[in-house]
Amino acid sequence: MSINEKILLASRPQGMPDMSSFSLQEEPLPVPQAGEALVRTLYLSVDPYIRGRLSEAKSYAEPYKIGEVIKSGAIGQVMESADPEFKPGDVVAGTWGWQRFAAADTSTLRKVDPELAPITASLGVLGMTGLTAYFGLLDIGQPKEGETVVVSGAAGAVGMVVGQIAKLKGARAVGIAGSDEKNTYLTEQLGFDAAINYRTEPDLLAALEKACPNGVDVYFDNVGGEVSDAVLSLINKNARIPICGQIALYNLEKPDQGPRVQSTLLTNTALMKGFLVGDYSKDYPRAMADLAKWVAGGQIQYAENIVDGFENTIEAFLGLFSGDNLGKQLVKVSELTE
Amino acid sequence: MSINEKILLASRPQGMPDMSSFSLQEEPLPVPQAGEALVRTLYLSVDPYIRGRLSEAKSYAEPYKIGEVIKSGAIGQVMESADPEFKPGDVVAGTWGWQRFAAADTSTLRKVDPELAPITASLGVLGMTGLTAYFGLLDIGQPKEGETVVVSGAAGAVGMVVGQIAKLKGARAVGIAGSDEKNTYLTEQLGFDAAINYRTEPDLLAALEKACPNGVDVYFDNVGGEVSDAVLSLINKNARIPICGQIALYNLEKPDQGPRVQSTLLTNTALMKGFLVGDYSKDYPRAMADLAKWVAGGQIQYAENIVDGFENTIEAFLGLFSGDNLGKQLVKVSELTE
Repeated sequence: MSINEKILLASRPQGMPDMSSFSLQEEPLPVPQAGEALVRTLYLSVDPYIRGRLSEAKSYAEPYKIGEVIKSGAIGQVMESADPEFKPGDVVAGTWGWQRFAAADTSTLRKVDPELAPITASLGVLGMTGLTAYFGLLDIGQPKEGETVVVSGAAGAVGMVVGQIAKLKGARAVGIAGSDEKNTYLTEQLGFDAAINYRTEPDLLAALEKACPNGVDVYFDNVGGEVSDAVLSLINKNARIPICGQIALYNLEKPDQGPRVQSTLLTNTALMKGFLVGDYSKDYPRAMADLAKWVAGGQIQYAENIVDGFENTIEAFLGLFSGDNLGKQLVKVSELTE
Repeated sequence: MSINEKILLASRPQGMPDMSSFSLQEEPLPVPQAGEALVRTLYLSVDPYIRGRLSEAKSYAEPYKIGEVIKSGAIGQVMESADPEFKPGDVVAGTWGWQRFAAADTSTLRKVDPELAPITASLGVLGMTGLTAYFGLLDIGQPKEGETVVVSGAAGAVGMVVGQIAKLKGARAVGIAGSDEKNTYLTEQLGFDAAINYRTEPDLLAALEKACPNGVDVYFDNVGGEVSDAVLSLINKNARIPICGQIALYNLEKPDQGPRVQSTLLTNTALMKGFLVGDYSKDYPRAMADLAKWVAGGQIQYAENIVDGFENTIEAFLGLFSGDNLGKQLVKVSELTE
């Protein structure tokens, strides 16, 4: 227990990353300085947006430096603290990322109440992914009663919350995901009105037309590429299109070519907007209150896919791009202690 | 004078329209019924958006029917009236389009005061084109002091007003147009900070980078295609992109392919929105008051290209797609009488 292990960026991947993009470093346990707390990681988060930060190209988040630890959401338990506000045993969420231990600046930590919800929810539906769904759908998408909301990447951590909030607002929710098992979960467990398997559907456009008999008013886009081309061909007048992610493109080595979307936006007087959850930080408390209420009331359910063992972190991350995960992908690093 | 002439849609063009897309019809002078006025056309307007209405495809405006007169903006003088609000000699603007005379529903007419501004302004800067520039730029683009606004089709009727309103709001205005003569007009006459000739510039991207040293905050897009691809590669965080027209594409026979824009919007958390001036009709009075004040004060100047003779209407329309017109393209049909 006196050694820390960290996963660092070893080299910038061209195309799909692999194990060689990362390296493992061991170092002595850090000692918390004034205003810091030593935390032991309980769970860490692996997310598609991390792919963007592996590259040097301009993105909405700062690229990781070579040799830097991969920062991501994490939950941990305080072991030692040089800040009287945080006590040993407290459960905290932060962004120290892919390491077993961290001396974290306490101003970057928020306490997690294990009584309120399972602590892993604070990395998902009650964390960044829930907030991403909330603001993208409600601020940009603005679904109205009776409208149709389509979400791609629907069985991912963001997508499944998007569909459920759409239902809460009285809209029709149509999901696009990559397996029949996922789609059954979306329609039977989460109440989506329809779900389409983009991998096996022989005619995606026809399937979308059938699932959206009144066209598409909101398209919450997590994936990009040809799936999005098909959805966009069905948008209605004054449609809104929040661009949340483009996972189909993150590992492309060539520029992404396809039908230009401007004519479609023009003839439908439609809006398309990229967004970043961090731009809404001043509204987090209101959103968190709504999400917590909906989760507590069972109106929003969520799924997690938890891989056991810090040593499996990189594989869990790479698995995001094969589309196998249902809901939030987490890695369990150590046990919560009383 | 007892015969009316009308230009009708004869057949739907594939690709670039030509004379065979239209036919000429003669008919007796119409007789105004209750609530109508007989008007003699003074000027009529030819506009790029008319191309869209020649096709059957879904667009933001209703397609013309085969055999229907081409509706567009027009100014005329009342000859006879069955509505006491309109008197012979009154100058009116309406949308009766490409015909020498019309019996127009007076609810579709607005009176034009020849004392306020040259009457042709009511088809341009004090009409639909000025309003289009106003709402697209101010409602969607929202330029702030010190920001950079790029406008394509900058020497067209909408584009030149866009650049001048941008300057009024304290922004840097950069125009893209198709001739050096136009660009000299934009910079020397209208106060644009820079203007780029997309036809002769060997490296459009380099020219844009030079003209926009602080990147692009607002891109008012009238043209689409590769010109827009280049501008979009330079947008800043939180850029706004009103899509007003896509004249480069109107006559394409194949789907328009190019780099998909979603990743650019995502990494810059940028907004792109198609719009239609008619959606702002409740705000026309406020906008007209601003535009009239700016025109009267000389802060907004405008150019018109007036072709003489109703028989030249179709050629004037087709000329829009060769990019030769500076400012608003009009056809003079008859003389204003006292």
